[in-house]
Amino acid sequence: MKKDMEKKEKAAHIKFIGGGPAAVLGVTGAGVHCGLKPDGALVLALFLSEQPCKTAAFFTANKLLGAHIPVFREKLRAGRGLVSALLVNSKNANCSTGKQGEKDNLAICAALAKELGLPPEQTLFASTGVIGVRLPAGLIRAGLDPLVTQHGKAGVANAARAILTTDTRPKICAVETEHCGRRYHIGGVAKGAGMIAPNLATMLSFVFTDLDLPAASLRKIAAECVEESYNSISVDGDTSPNDTVLVMANGMSGVKLGAGDSAGLARFKESLGAVTKRLAMEIVRDGEGATKVMHIEVLGAATAADAKCIARAIALSPLVKTAIFGMDPNWGRIISAAGASGAKFDPLRARLDIDGACVYNLGKPRRLRAEIMRNPDVFIRLETGLGRAAARFWSCDLSIDYVKINAEYMT
Amino acid sequence: MKKDMEKKEKAAHIKFIGGGPAAVLGVTGAGVHCGLKPDGALVLALFLSEQPCKTAAFFTANKLLGAHIPVFREKLRAGRGLVSALLVNSKNANCSTGKQGEKDNLAICAALAKELGLPPEQTLFASTGVIGVRLPAGLIRAGLDPLVTQHGKAGVANAARAILTTDTRPKICAVETEHCGRRYHIGGVAKGAGMIAPNLATMLSFVFTDLDLPAASLRKIAAECVEESYNSISVDGDTSPNDTVLVMANGMSGVKLGAGDSAGLARFKESLGAVTKRLAMEIVRDGEGATKVMHIEVLGAATAADAKCIARAIALSPLVKTAIFGMDPNWGRIISAAGASGAKFDPLRARLDIDGACVYNLGKPRRLRAEIMRNPDVFIRLETGLGRAAARFWSCDLSIDYVKINAEYMT
Repeated sequence: MKKDMEKKEKAAHIKFIGGGPAAVLGVTGAGVHCGLKPDGALVLALFLSEQPCKTAAFFTANKLLGAHIPVFREKLRAGRGLVSALLVNSKNANCSTGKQGEKDNLAICAALAKELGLPPEQTLFASTGVIGVRLPAGLIRAGLDPLVTQHGKAGVANAARAILTTDTRPKICAVETEHCGRRYHIGGVAKGAGMIAPNLATMLSFVFTDLDLPAASLRKIAAECVEESYNSISVDGDTSPNDTVLVMANGMSGVKLGAGDSAGLARFKESLGAVTKRLAMEIVRDGEGATKVMHIEVLGAATAADAKCIARAIALSPLVKTAIFGMDPNWGRIISAAGASGAKFDPLRARLDIDGACVYNLGKPRRLRAEIMRNPDVFIRLETGLGRAAARFWSCDLSIDYVKINAEYMT
Repeated sequence: MKKDMEKKEKAAHIKFIGGGPAAVLGVTGAGVHCGLKPDGALVLALFLSEQPCKTAAFFTANKLLGAHIPVFREKLRAGRGLVSALLVNSKNANCSTGKQGEKDNLAICAALAKELGLPPEQTLFASTGVIGVRLPAGLIRAGLDPLVTQHGKAGVANAARAILTTDTRPKICAVETEHCGRRYHIGGVAKGAGMIAPNLATMLSFVFTDLDLPAASLRKIAAECVEESYNSISVDGDTSPNDTVLVMANGMSGVKLGAGDSAGLARFKESLGAVTKRLAMEIVRDGEGATKVMHIEVLGAATAADAKCIARAIALSPLVKTAIFGMDPNWGRIISAAGASGAKFDPLRARLDIDGACVYNLGKPRRLRAEIMRNPDVFIRLETGLGRAAARFWSCDLSIDYVKINAEYMT
């Protein structure tokens, strides 16, 4: 009941709508194949904003970096964080390609900027795909002209497809949010089917909004939303060299928030969080070989860091993941993963619920119901009884297909 | 050539011999089935030393603890670290069984001590198997009498089998070491086919020696050997609630080392390390579903902690493990795992060799030879070029059978 009421309340001012980035005023896109993939699949994407976007950018923590990441950092600095055009290729990560990789990125961006009549520092170019192979610059340059000719609202769906690698489906999401009787939009795309698959350099997400808000507020809110979505999911527990998230605001809705409008900013955070969580969840659901999504909630932890540490340990444990795959309500593996996490944890004070049924309480197992873990979504709720901190984490199961996909990729 | 010479030099004073713990003077054993497993498999083991052993003990870091661990700690304190008899059951971990679990352990120990005429604090009882089920105390008590009647040198092989769970074979090892023209022995057993499988509460290892040395020296050397063997292996990267390693010295060879005999103690460390590494390697080789063993060596790291952190990250990465299973010399996954480890790492200064062939150097991939990763042992050597610290780690691949074994265990 409470959940329904919360949903209704949220529904009153935040509405999921179609179109992804196309729902955002002034944002267009296109996707082309350009010969990079032998089957003629879409492989080159353009996202374009009519007005420059204030941009909050987040990159991988991996010390191995795709060539686009240092280039992004430098351009965002030079262009004061404003971005108008975003080019993305899949199939080739432009990673471990040295200075040549950065030069290739800059040269292609310069060509695109010229064709669009934009400053080069407002034109970014991200890559995802195989590591260690030089970008086929000629093929990509040949794709620029059709991208520029074709871009439009209808092309955004093609752009969302062109950024995919091992993903089985595109991931898009948009919301419309009401603010003082007016409306603004947030729409994004994502790709990724493993948090890491270095030969596919995995997670990218680009989110646009037509809200106008101070750059500092955008950065702060975007950072919080990234932490609670993309940084709270795992498919195989690692971090790709190319992971990139951009949150871009072009202000074209005419809705403007000041730095002091705490209610308006809170609603924006809720709206952006709705989009980033939905996209993150889509990544988990499309995880390599995944048959189930684990929703992990840790409550009553001593600190927020402990809560996340325990949630992450459960999410990453191969034994928990295989148990979920086998629909085996193996509470011992979950309690043990929590105990081994390094966080403060006392099994005698803990309570574990799976799919709403208590399976373990204060050190003792409870009788298991046969029907738990049978659905595509499995809910794991661990109350540690040590404090008030909480965390959520999402992960998928570890299946035979995961091993097949990853053992057989290159060979 | 250098390796051969090292081996020859080692062979001069350390010789691998048969028998495991039976090679150690005064150590006997027995294994019985006692009805705990329906197929009549051996399930209850006794290891006995004619003279009390000075004992160095190491337990899991998991906050969920098997009932035997607090009891061991208390008895080792009360008995000043002396142990004469060690009872072990498989099939039931006596974990998450509360105070009753500790009581069951103490009562069975008391019965065994009485039958053997030993002080109860010198009689330990360890368990491994399913979590959360009370120990079948009656069945185990009924097994004590046959154990006491049958124990002998020949029974040690049965004891080594009785402690197994998902292991496919027993793990025993012994060496004979020369010291000033006299000989002493070190012999041990181990069980474990996953670092964690909480329903099987995994790694146990018991190592005996007939050397006489100060308790403090034994503890220090045993701790170093445990760190370089059992703490440097992984099957699935976690820590079971029941993990226990005991190193026990009964002094019965008559060879005695003083605390100041640094050459003698160094040779003992080398000898003990030979046994613990061999046993640890046997655990990895028998890892659940394993088809290959990864030998990981990280050199030139900034600090020892960084070296181990990088080695561990490579060993645990599901993507590296699936690549090894697929015999896919995917250097990108290894470099990326190192980059994401959190340790100091610069891909532009690193060099990676697989099976003796350089596949990546200073940021650039090299041409791959088809024959690498084809053998059951895969050698990964990462030179990070940042300092002088080194670490070794051993792990196995992640196979389709691993998923099958762990998805289907309870169901």
